[in-house]
Amino acid sequence: MLTPASDAHFMAAALALSERGRGRTGGNPNVGCVIVKHGIIVGRGWTQPGGRPHAEQMALAEARASAKGADIYVTMEPCAHESSRGPTCSNAIIAAKPKRVIVATLDADERTRRRGIDRLGDAGIPVSVGILEPAARRTMAGFLCRIEKERPFVSLKLAMSLDGCIAMADGTSQWITGDRARAHAHLERARSDAILVGAGTAKADRPGLDVRIDGLTDRSPQAIVLGHDPELPGDWLQISEPAAIADLADINWLLIEGGAKTAASFLQAGLVDRLLLYRAPIIIGGGLPGVADIGLENLGDAHGQWRRIDQRALRQDVLEIYDRAA
Amino acid sequence: MLTPASDAHFMAAALALSERGRGRTGGNPNVGCVIVKHGIIVGRGWTQPGGRPHAEQMALAEARASAKGADIYVTMEPCAHESSRGPTCSNAIIAAKPKRVIVATLDADERTRRRGIDRLGDAGIPVSVGILEPAARRTMAGFLCRIEKERPFVSLKLAMSLDGCIAMADGTSQWITGDRARAHAHLERARSDAILVGAGTAKADRPGLDVRIDGLTDRSPQAIVLGHDPELPGDWLQISEPAAIADLADINWLLIEGGAKTAASFLQAGLVDRLLLYRAPIIIGGGLPGVADIGLENLGDAHGQWRRIDQRALRQDVLEIYDRAA
Repeated sequence: MLTPASDAHFMAAALALSERGRGRTGGNPNVGCVIVKHGIIVGRGWTQPGGRPHAEQMALAEARASAKGADIYVTMEPCAHESSRGPTCSNAIIAAKPKRVIVATLDADERTRRRGIDRLGDAGIPVSVGILEPAARRTMAGFLCRIEKERPFVSLKLAMSLDGCIAMADGTSQWITGDRARAHAHLERARSDAILVGAGTAKADRPGLDVRIDGLTDRSPQAIVLGHDPELPGDWLQISEPAAIADLADINWLLIEGGAKTAASFLQAGLVDRLLLYRAPIIIGGGLPGVADIGLENLGDAHGQWRRIDQRALRQDVLEIYDRAA
Repeated sequence: MLTPASDAHFMAAALALSERGRGRTGGNPNVGCVIVKHGIIVGRGWTQPGGRPHAEQMALAEARASAKGADIYVTMEPCAHESSRGPTCSNAIIAAKPKRVIVATLDADERTRRRGIDRLGDAGIPVSVGILEPAARRTMAGFLCRIEKERPFVSLKLAMSLDGCIAMADGTSQWITGDRARAHAHLERARSDAILVGAGTAKADRPGLDVRIDGLTDRSPQAIVLGHDPELPGDWLQISEPAAIADLADINWLLIEGGAKTAASFLQAGLVDRLLLYRAPIIIGGGLPGVADIGLENLGDAHGQWRRIDQRALRQDVLEIYDRAA
């Protein structure tokens, strides 16, 4: 016996689609959309590379006439601001004559917030807002952070031993984690618009910050260095201090890959939103720590700042994800 | 409807009882025993403080005449060697005329191994061996290690930040973990025969290595220092090198609480069987590492040595338990 799928089920499907756009939608949110008619998904869409077409337009193009009388699930309020690059999604939805529209979260941009759903409502289309909103805010955190905090959402990746070392005392770090964990770290690269390392790490490792996963090599993100290194390839961006990430255009998701001083400077500046801790079941002993001095004066001040939101086994290793406690 | 309990269910109950003896049975194994008649537990026992009475004798005393025709579950083969301190458990069981005896694991001591079950068999009592044996070997690992490796089972405790620090750069470590984790660490003390710290830690902290849990304060273990400190109280034992733990009499379970050099010296000597990692969701940055140089020359050599066997949340903190990979 089949249980009818609920609004939350279909919104979860839209959120899964929205993940596909992560790290490649430029300044746009990575939205997902599904269109459901008589319990069957007749259209699916997600924000395409560079930001267009939008998720709703892709899903409407797939659903065609079936969108009439259907339920449209979209992870963020459809856009209502005119653009030279195409019609607004709210107008496109109105033209398709759906039965109702279900929205996970409103647009964060105060200039456009509520305009999309107001336009739908004015056209007589019932709109529900707030289903799976916390999950939607996590999935589109890059865009939301850029609007709300005027900077990218910053994840700090550390690949560590059980005793918290990211390398042996002589700098050797190949390899601490295993194949599966390293592949996952490459996936995180693919889900980022840009990757940042410190000048020391860039000089020492000349890291190829590309995505080495078959089928995803074209998703290699923008490389950024904190500090200055005249010998770096010309396609690298260089910034002089952590706060300068606010000036990065069209970067929603920024991944910091080290080293210890760079990690510390972003942490000290309060500019890290997420920790990605890849931990291998090894003891190094007397190795290099992952985070240099962050200026902590009282141990008590360190508490209450991080909350574990996910954990998974990656063969023998473990990935733990901590987000800033609200 | 009740499903009849299986042999594994009753053996699990016996293992739970065996845990009660951990850290207080001297040179004896911490055995557990349940006696089951018509599906009902009529006797329960576990090795008593100091090692006597044995688990079987305690359970038989509770079951009295009900032991006749009953099933006796015992986590380790009943003893068969005569002692001035009481009758052998195998003889006591034979006298009780049970229907059968179920044993999780044989005695590790080659001098007595199989003698207990052979004696029961000779008396016409059917014996099953091997039910929940891996769990039994974990529960009684202290005794088994002492027999098989001629030294205590050694656990290394580290209370760390996410970036692997056990203190701030100035040595401050109160507190990294929260109340719940610290209470659990005290429980681990109660489950140990002895606690060991380095001379530096003993001098710096003058740690009171007691069990500060209401109702368990009488279970405070023997304190041992690695190195020499003439100012320590007279009831502390002092050893000069990790290998000297082989000479500790009647210590099955040894807990190492630091510092970083002591941890490293035991790890380097291959004398750590278990890691107890209490991890708090904080970043310290530039703090003190938990493990000093262990003489690792190739990163590859660090792999394959540890296996995560358990993990639990302790309010905001996490306890991870790693055992040596076989």
